[in-house]
Amino acid sequence: VTMGSTADAALAAEVQARLDGKAKPPGALGRIEALALQLALIQATAAPTADKALLLLCAGDHGLTQAGVSSYPASVTQAMVATLLAGRATANAFARAVGAEVLVVDAGVDADLAAHPQLVDAKVGRGTHNALLQPAMSAAQARQALERGAALARDQLATGGFDVLLLGEMGIGNSASAALLMHRLAPAPLADCIGVGAGHDAEGLARKVAALQAAAQRSAVTAPLEVLAEFGGFEIAMMAGAVLGAAEARRPVIVDGFIGSAAALVAVRLEPAAADYLIFSHRSAERGHARMLDTLGAEPLLDLSLRLGEGTGALLALPLVRAAARLLTDVASLDEVLEGRL
Amino acid sequence: VTMGSTADAALAAEVQARLDGKAKPPGALGRIEALALQLALIQATAAPTADKALLLLCAGDHGLTQAGVSSYPASVTQAMVATLLAGRATANAFARAVGAEVLVVDAGVDADLAAHPQLVDAKVGRGTHNALLQPAMSAAQARQALERGAALARDQLATGGFDVLLLGEMGIGNSASAALLMHRLAPAPLADCIGVGAGHDAEGLARKVAALQAAAQRSAVTAPLEVLAEFGGFEIAMMAGAVLGAAEARRPVIVDGFIGSAAALVAVRLEPAAADYLIFSHRSAERGHARMLDTLGAEPLLDLSLRLGEGTGALLALPLVRAAARLLTDVASLDEVLEGRL
Repeated sequence: VTMGSTADAALAAEVQARLDGKAKPPGALGRIEALALQLALIQATAAPTADKALLLLCAGDHGLTQAGVSSYPASVTQAMVATLLAGRATANAFARAVGAEVLVVDAGVDADLAAHPQLVDAKVGRGTHNALLQPAMSAAQARQALERGAALARDQLATGGFDVLLLGEMGIGNSASAALLMHRLAPAPLADCIGVGAGHDAEGLARKVAALQAAAQRSAVTAPLEVLAEFGGFEIAMMAGAVLGAAEARRPVIVDGFIGSAAALVAVRLEPAAADYLIFSHRSAERGHARMLDTLGAEPLLDLSLRLGEGTGALLALPLVRAAARLLTDVASLDEVLEGRL
Repeated sequence: VTMGSTADAALAAEVQARLDGKAKPPGALGRIEALALQLALIQATAAPTADKALLLLCAGDHGLTQAGVSSYPASVTQAMVATLLAGRATANAFARAVGAEVLVVDAGVDADLAAHPQLVDAKVGRGTHNALLQPAMSAAQARQALERGAALARDQLATGGFDVLLLGEMGIGNSASAALLMHRLAPAPLADCIGVGAGHDAEGLARKVAALQAAAQRSAVTAPLEVLAEFGGFEIAMMAGAVLGAAEARRPVIVDGFIGSAAALVAVRLEPAAADYLIFSHRSAERGHARMLDTLGAEPLLDLSLRLGEGTGALLALPLVRAAARLLTDVASLDEVLEGRL
């Protein structure tokens, strides 16, 4: 992967002057103006676009579910993939509401999935190993998942002519994996990284905490690729790779919630310049997400107490990104207004 | 105007059960779930829709500008109406980004505007009087503006088959008018209601404060219609009327920022049940807006430091409303998923 920072002082000055010269009080669009600048720098143009958007929704299973980290059975991953392919999941509904395409990526579901026009087979393995007992995946698998994610993002963005990439996930147990990744890569105390995920009572949460403590104690690795192999999930690794691929293609990536941010953290630890390409959509209700966002220096656009995943928060932020692009491309300058050149 | 509360215990229970039974952890969509319930109660159906959306952008001039309450000349109102009709204002750009129609309403611009397909002539007068010296408008004008706003909302919603109404405004000096309305109707200390509006240096702000203090001292009225006549603007009165008309038609109204919230406050003081129909889009950077929202018991969806008006914040919240509707209509139940009925 080759990518540079988006820094470009000349372009930044040009875009800022355009924003300030629009027919509105300077700065009156607040965070949308900052977003417009970021978008322009990512796409390397003062006239960015965000019309065509693709949600890559990566699915995978987690051996950690054998340790009881989730209140849902692992089979729900496969059931929700079927729901997504039927167009009946929340991500489909929200994608329809905002106008985005959805592709489901089998990164590592523990089942043989039938071919489907909206399903991409990128399976690295049938679920990860139980990270309580052994590395979730081999180093080769971690690299393979990253590379497939990067290639997939590059290819899909180019083939479909997409302006923006959104990343979402489905994988029972993946908030446990994300907590371990955050713990080691932020780094942050493990207790601050563990939340209820899809839902837990006190007993379930205690079981999740105990399992993750044991997993964390099993290995002291801190290098990003090793941490990913030790504690990651195939879908998280593939999302991290997709971040890198999109950045290489100079396309913005809208990051979803806790698990998506863990993937973004992996990507940024592997390639710090990837941070420039990330748009953080929302602050999730999942414990740990606020601190993870702080670690990433991110101020998300939305705060709606979402905690679903599937890319639902990223989809809700997409219209803000489109509005930011159109502020630059569609709005008259004050000079044009005052001189009657409309 | 005849309108009732949206309260319907049986429908609320049905909708909540549907939300809880969707293929996702209960409550995992946070505020979008509460929004879905509100939308269902407004439209009186468990299958609400928010696809077709209309922004009524009401424009008017303010005699208060003669007291130097704005840093912009009053002629900018007319120039921005021309910009809006040319499709080159921020509201047009954002409407394109989210998919909404825009109609500009001449509620009281101080100019004769040429006919235009996107312009509705509902002019009550050529700008208000200077409220520093006399009532901004007569009681008859206040009633006329309210009635025209209500009729316009009802007619446009019905004719165009719109599911949702958004309200925006353009009017140099209208943050001064809105501050006086808030002061008297919240009620709140005047100093807490005055902000920089479209922009002020310290001297300009001091001039605005002094003018509004003098205006407030001129009249002690507190009854909503009298306050509206004394301190209002034609566009604010027309927006308040549009709230009432949309509520009567059982359509949700997405409220924009400080001035839009002042119009909503007028509507709610005239008809408390109108509150049920309001969706507050964002917390503006304008001083006074946070307190006004508190007064209205509103927790807005977005907080992006916007302070433009034109309905721009309402437009950015529209996709969230659409997502809420589609959560109810498009997403499978957990039972359907588990039983393979997709």
